[in-house]
Amino acid sequence: MILQAIDLSRAYSRTIGYRKVTPLLKLHFLSRRWSADVYMKCDQLQEIGAFKIRGAANFALQLTEAQLSRGLITHSSGNHAQAVAYMANKLGTKAHIVMPENSNKLKLENAEKWGAEITLCKATIEDRLIQANRIADETGGLIIPPFDHEWIVAGQATCAMEVFSQTTDVDIFVAPLGGGGLLAGSALAAEYFSAHTLVLGAEPEQAKDGYLGYKSGVREKNVKADTVADGLRTTVGEIPFSIIKESVADIWLADEADIVPWMYRIWEESKMIIEPSSAVPFAALDKQSHKIKGKKIVVAITGGNVDLTQLP
Amino acid sequence: MILQAIDLSRAYSRTIGYRKVTPLLKLHFLSRRWSADVYMKCDQLQEIGAFKIRGAANFALQLTEAQLSRGLITHSSGNHAQAVAYMANKLGTKAHIVMPENSNKLKLENAEKWGAEITLCKATIEDRLIQANRIADETGGLIIPPFDHEWIVAGQATCAMEVFSQTTDVDIFVAPLGGGGLLAGSALAAEYFSAHTLVLGAEPEQAKDGYLGYKSGVREKNVKADTVADGLRTTVGEIPFSIIKESVADIWLADEADIVPWMYRIWEESKMIIEPSSAVPFAALDKQSHKIKGKKIVVAITGGNVDLTQLP
Repeated sequence: MILQAIDLSRAYSRTIGYRKVTPLLKLHFLSRRWSADVYMKCDQLQEIGAFKIRGAANFALQLTEAQLSRGLITHSSGNHAQAVAYMANKLGTKAHIVMPENSNKLKLENAEKWGAEITLCKATIEDRLIQANRIADETGGLIIPPFDHEWIVAGQATCAMEVFSQTTDVDIFVAPLGGGGLLAGSALAAEYFSAHTLVLGAEPEQAKDGYLGYKSGVREKNVKADTVADGLRTTVGEIPFSIIKESVADIWLADEADIVPWMYRIWEESKMIIEPSSAVPFAALDKQSHKIKGKKIVVAITGGNVDLTQLP
Repeated sequence: MILQAIDLSRAYSRTIGYRKVTPLLKLHFLSRRWSADVYMKCDQLQEIGAFKIRGAANFALQLTEAQLSRGLITHSSGNHAQAVAYMANKLGTKAHIVMPENSNKLKLENAEKWGAEITLCKATIEDRLIQANRIADETGGLIIPPFDHEWIVAGQATCAMEVFSQTTDVDIFVAPLGGGGLLAGSALAAEYFSAHTLVLGAEPEQAKDGYLGYKSGVREKNVKADTVADGLRTTVGEIPFSIIKESVADIWLADEADIVPWMYRIWEESKMIIEPSSAVPFAALDKQSHKIKGKKIVVAITGGNVDLTQLP
């Protein structure tokens, strides 16, 4: 394994002061529904409204002064952009964020809130990369990847590590699967610090590259993603995949039609705003709830950055 | 003062296991906006989605076996109904809830979820009382008042008491003002356990009976209430008023047009669903934010029972 327990421990202490230890709250109605003991790990309550601060902090905090001084760059329309903008702000350097010109207003504002410089690009992955590389060439700054890097995976592992310090005897830890940073990090955290905990991934049926790769053992790169869970449309990264295929207990799928209703159900019952991506684990678990009866389950809530003027 | 420190201390220990010690979370964006240190006390995360469990628990837990066996009665269209239904369920007795026939579906379902027997009545306070008294006569059960009783006030005091055990040096504690149970309890909690903390009430401009009574020293009973903050339409009770006029530092008003925008702003920035009533303190504080600069402020969030299918 590329990442050892010591790497996770270092990420855990390095990121103190940048990540919040977010609350772990019991979901009473789901506990009754599934005859289980169900908790949500509330990472939507991070200051940027998403878990992504963990990986971005662990990455940015390992750069030299000279590297930092040239600024941080990323291309993203989502929570990773905010995480990089936040870290640049805290570390006193500049953030350059390449965002598609059709990004929604809320996400633009959120990145700007932290003083990032936004470069709009065409809504294609190719143009995003071209623009980001151009800025990197011009400034000498580093591009911070959203998930496919071991520093990012180690940073995301701190979410499950916190859970294992907040409670004991977790039978199942569930994380949604997009690029795979959080799921891979969670699997390593369990392996090193809570060996009896099974880690499950949850993915939309309509973006199941991770599921297919996990089942076949070969990473899938060309699955069409067409899901409301916008954070999970991306393809699993190479480094996360190598960890997931070894250390994750299973990947469960959510039906597309169940995702938005589960999002609102969690809003109503928990009084917490979670994004569609964070509803995917609940939709997936509910389909196979007979398998989790009597278990203590923690679901990682990845974010709450929903544009309330554009509700699904 | 009718309620002594020992009464609050007893309420605090009596209600353990029924109230949750809800999280106290920092609001970063508001702290920046007001140049202050702003926290929300998240009582919308109580199992019934509102602080009302505190008073209802402190009341129900002081009844004799014989009283309990005849059931608990209340008339309410809101969070107090759920609190009474919840307590009856936990204590193994029956709850009879009188609700107006135009109550919304969510609130009916929430009371029914705990096994309460619902009696629909006409949408007038007179018919509510007639029906509740009829049930009390028939069953011999006790009517649990929503705010105008010292056991209720002592129970609601546990919210601020928790805050004073979760953090120190609170300069200002703010509670919305409806019937006055929470505000009166908070004022007593500060007086007895955190003497340097000022307690502020917040009321909608369009339901300002509490404000007018506080300023004149005489309780107002006939102010027309026409506000979206449905939890605050009621008139301040006699017992809460006698405490509020002595022990509250001031009452600040919120403009009606500011309430719903502040509700959504808090949703977006905190990822928490709060009711319109819980947005009133923010709208009121924002109008006079120059007075709270540099202060450590805790706002009591009273509930999150919003019908998501009927958003304002």
